[in-house]
Amino acid sequence: MDDIEIDEVATPELDDPVLIEGLPGVGHVGKLAAEHLLEEFDGELVRRVYTTEFPPQVSVDGDGVAELTCAEFHAVETDGADLLVLTGDHQAGSNKGHYTLTTTFLDIAAEFGATRAYALGGVPTGELVEEYTVLGAVSDGDLVEALEDAGVEFRPDEPAGGIVGVSGLVLGLGGRRGFDAACLMGETSGYLVDPKSARAVLEVLAALLDFSIDYESLEDRAEEMEEVVGKIREMQDGPAVPDDDLRYIG
Amino acid sequence: MDDIEIDEVATPELDDPVLIEGLPGVGHVGKLAAEHLLEEFDGELVRRVYTTEFPPQVSVDGDGVAELTCAEFHAVETDGADLLVLTGDHQAGSNKGHYTLTTTFLDIAAEFGATRAYALGGVPTGELVEEYTVLGAVSDGDLVEALEDAGVEFRPDEPAGGIVGVSGLVLGLGGRRGFDAACLMGETSGYLVDPKSARAVLEVLAALLDFSIDYESLEDRAEEMEEVVGKIREMQDGPAVPDDDLRYIG
Amino acid sequence: MDDIEIDEVATPELDDPVLIEGLPGVGHVGKLAAEHLLEEFDGELVRRVYTTEFPPQVSVDGDGVAELTCAEFHAVETDGADLLVLTGDHQAGSNKGHYTLTTTFLDIAAEFGATRAYALGGVPTGELVEEYTVLGAVSDGDLVEALEDAGVEFRPDEPAGGIVGVSGLVLGLGGRRGFDAACLMGETSGYLVDPKSARAVLEVLAALLDFSIDYESLEDRAEEMEEVVGKIREMQDGPAVPDDDLRYIG
Amino acid sequence: MDDIEIDEVATPELDDPVLIEGLPGVGHVGKLAAEHLLEEFDGELVRRVYTTEFPPQVSVDGDGVAELTCAEFHAVETDGADLLVLTGDHQAGSNKGHYTLTTTFLDIAAEFGATRAYALGGVPTGELVEEYTVLGAVSDGDLVEALEDAGVEFRPDEPAGGIVGVSGLVLGLGGRRGFDAACLMGETSGYLVDPKSARAVLEVLAALLDFSIDYESLEDRAEEMEEVVGKIREMQDGPAVPDDDLRYIG
Repeated sequence: MDDIEIDEVATPELDDPVLIEGLPGVGHVGKLAAEHLLEEFDGELVRRVYTTEFPPQVSVDGDGVAELTCAEFHAVETDGADLLVLTGDHQAGSNKGHYTLTTTFLDIAAEFGATRAYALGGVPTGELVEEYTVLGAVSDGDLVEALEDAGVEFRPDEPAGGIVGVSGLVLGLGGRRGFDAACLMGETSGYLVDPKSARAVLEVLAALLDFSIDYESLEDRAEEMEEVVGKIREMQDGPAVPDDDLRYIG
Repeated sequence: MDDIEIDEVATPELDDPVLIEGLPGVGHVGKLAAEHLLEEFDGELVRRVYTTEFPPQVSVDGDGVAELTCAEFHAVETDGADLLVLTGDHQAGSNKGHYTLTTTFLDIAAEFGATRAYALGGVPTGELVEEYTVLGAVSDGDLVEALEDAGVEFRPDEPAGGIVGVSGLVLGLGGRRGFDAACLMGETSGYLVDPKSARAVLEVLAALLDFSIDYESLEDRAEEMEEVVGKIREMQDGPAVPDDDLRYIG
Repeated sequence: MDDIEIDEVATPELDDPVLIEGLPGVGHVGKLAAEHLLEEFDGELVRRVYTTEFPPQVSVDGDGVAELTCAEFHAVETDGADLLVLTGDHQAGSNKGHYTLTTTFLDIAAEFGATRAYALGGVPTGELVEEYTVLGAVSDGDLVEALEDAGVEFRPDEPAGGIVGVSGLVLGLGGRRGFDAACLMGETSGYLVDPKSARAVLEVLAALLDFSIDYESLEDRAEEMEEVVGKIREMQDGPAVPDDDLRYIG
Repeated sequence: MDDIEIDEVATPELDDPVLIEGLPGVGHVGKLAAEHLLEEFDGELVRRVYTTEFPPQVSVDGDGVAELTCAEFHAVETDGADLLVLTGDHQAGSNKGHYTLTTTFLDIAAEFGATRAYALGGVPTGELVEEYTVLGAVSDGDLVEALEDAGVEFRPDEPAGGIVGVSGLVLGLGGRRGFDAACLMGETSGYLVDPKSARAVLEVLAALLDFSIDYESLEDRAEEMEEVVGKIREMQDGPAVPDDDLRYIG
């Protein structure tokens, strides 16, 4: 096997498509957001990318059939812009792999005519988030204004540790080769999978690319997560009968 | 030394041989099963595969002679199908190495005319196993029925974490190049070397490939393991005098 | 992207320039010193070096614009020697990467006509430093005397663990290809960013290369660090009421 | 810099020289033994091997001069056989590097006409060693008898974990290309640098290659180590006044 192998599943004509990257990361915000796009809009699988940078792993589907780990591009037509949505279960396994793989991803996007790219992700706050701000970073200062109009917040020198992984390189490498690239980072505690943060990111994206989308299934996942959190709290706190009551009985 | 070096020890004519992979993994189930095949059927060593992906290591035999770490293929003639059994002491040392090495393994299998492959392994349950179910995963949905007839169980989306290492790639890469590949995973606690789980896997394999095999030596190993487990329990529990007795004395 | 990519931003004529390396390391002494040179002398950016050895990362500036991680060379004209100052946020990510990257750095220095190199860094003492000695190591014994005249101390076989990273290789690889290379290591506790140690290193460098430089902003940073240390102590010690007072109350 | 660079310092004529490998390992037994050969016999440096597999590091000598980390071959003439002694401060940094580097080492040995190789090392016992047995392993069963005559012990399948690192590959790769290779492993606790174990290994080597050598400086190092061990014990045990004495006073 070559270091990277690309299966060309389909090559539909797309109208000035926008690359949307949603690989795993903080709070799985980017991945949740990208997968929600695929669920709501019935995307068409167009490319599979296999690489020796991914773990040597297959996943098993509902029928017991194994599929080799890969990243996938789906073409998605919305009522607004056409999208080229990149999802998968893994980032690269090495520094160099991140560079090589992101270069391949940008090559594929360019092949479909994309000149704009949004890297979706989360930014950890370390505490429970009440209001889901979406932080931005761009490959070019000219892009800031339109993003601010869509509700994105820019904070000087933030995130302090920079942006790492494929999302960071979509900006860094994408910008160097002429993409108009932006990173949309939903604030999230960093401790849990966060569908609410994914929704906040998608709302910004919908405003920017002029499409409308339903959030019900994402809300359902958010409620499931809240139940999980509730149960964890219960287990930590023990039965909900306070000491005072016991004394009263005594 | 090249990244991979293959010693061609012998090249016997085999009749539609089936690749059986049994490298180290969970509960050493696959390795035990493959080695049991070699013990019972007197296989002929046909290939040694050396690679810089293996640890820089020699093993020392009963006469003090060192042998460089390698994976070995043995040709095995049973009363049923011909087998090409792959064993060894190591998996690859890197993501990329797993892909490269499995490709080499499949090349060798193809060279001997193999078109079918079984990756043997264990699947951890986290608790003591009473009944040794064998879980399956396949490269192609058409293979499911025959496996179910032989007693293999298929559970949607299991194992949840996918299948990793050479076994996973025998399915993933093998399937992509046209092998009919299946993974047979014996349930096992995951904490101990498990000859009973290896037997369960072999029973399925014998049914599938129509050979008969004796399990006595594997049973012996299972009994040894049980003695070991018994001793560990004793050490943890202290002397075997139950509380009741002590009260009686009191 | 290639393993190493060099952006040729500018190629000014320099007069026998001296390579000054100040990448991150112990106490960030080298980095602080090199950055102080850039602040005080208004250097001109001449080269950016991108490499797959750096983390897959962008930093975000005050306007929200992302820049791909790189190392930078600035040409700096002082009242003494011309300098070629190498700074950045990262060392290489692997053994091999350190060798490859340092070779590239030395290539660039040679391209500008540099034949001398100073690697700036810190050497950890494990305790608070009162007097900031600068330790030296050289690629050639003939360089010792001039450095001692400038106040550098040489101690046989020190630092005991050798010198690692790009600084070590500027000596090791630089010396092998004919550079007159020296490492100037400011003593520092090793626990904190140490602007005072950076000043000590710069004072030696200024004496060696016959330039004068203001240290005010470095002193300001040193004071900030002392405030930080003070606050950490307070937090550890609790409220500043001494035991004696309590007894008096008693 | 290439992955491996060899400085050809000298190429004296040697008479059927024997490769002696003594790189760092368990108890530094091999390294101590090889360095003792160089001290006692005044070897001539013949090759330096630099590699990107070694840490990016220079060591600093007594005059403050830095030398890039390397492995060294010395030609050593004894009253018995001629030796080619390989020493250094590091093993390779990766699996593949161990294979590549050992191949280079064997190439150099072959270039000097060596056909025999001894890899010196230690084998950990986990407890204090009273009698310093030397364990053996060979590339060819024909070598066992001569080694046993020189006092080497062979134990079936030991060491249980095999032999790792350059020593293991001198046997594994050396044997594959026709070297008569043996590993001499001095028993050692595994917790401390062990000059006594190094002496035991050298005594075997002297008997095998028919040279005589003085052990005084190695004994001095052994005594120093014992003082160190004594001090560590004192620190752990507290002041050396036994309980009995205290009771007597009472």
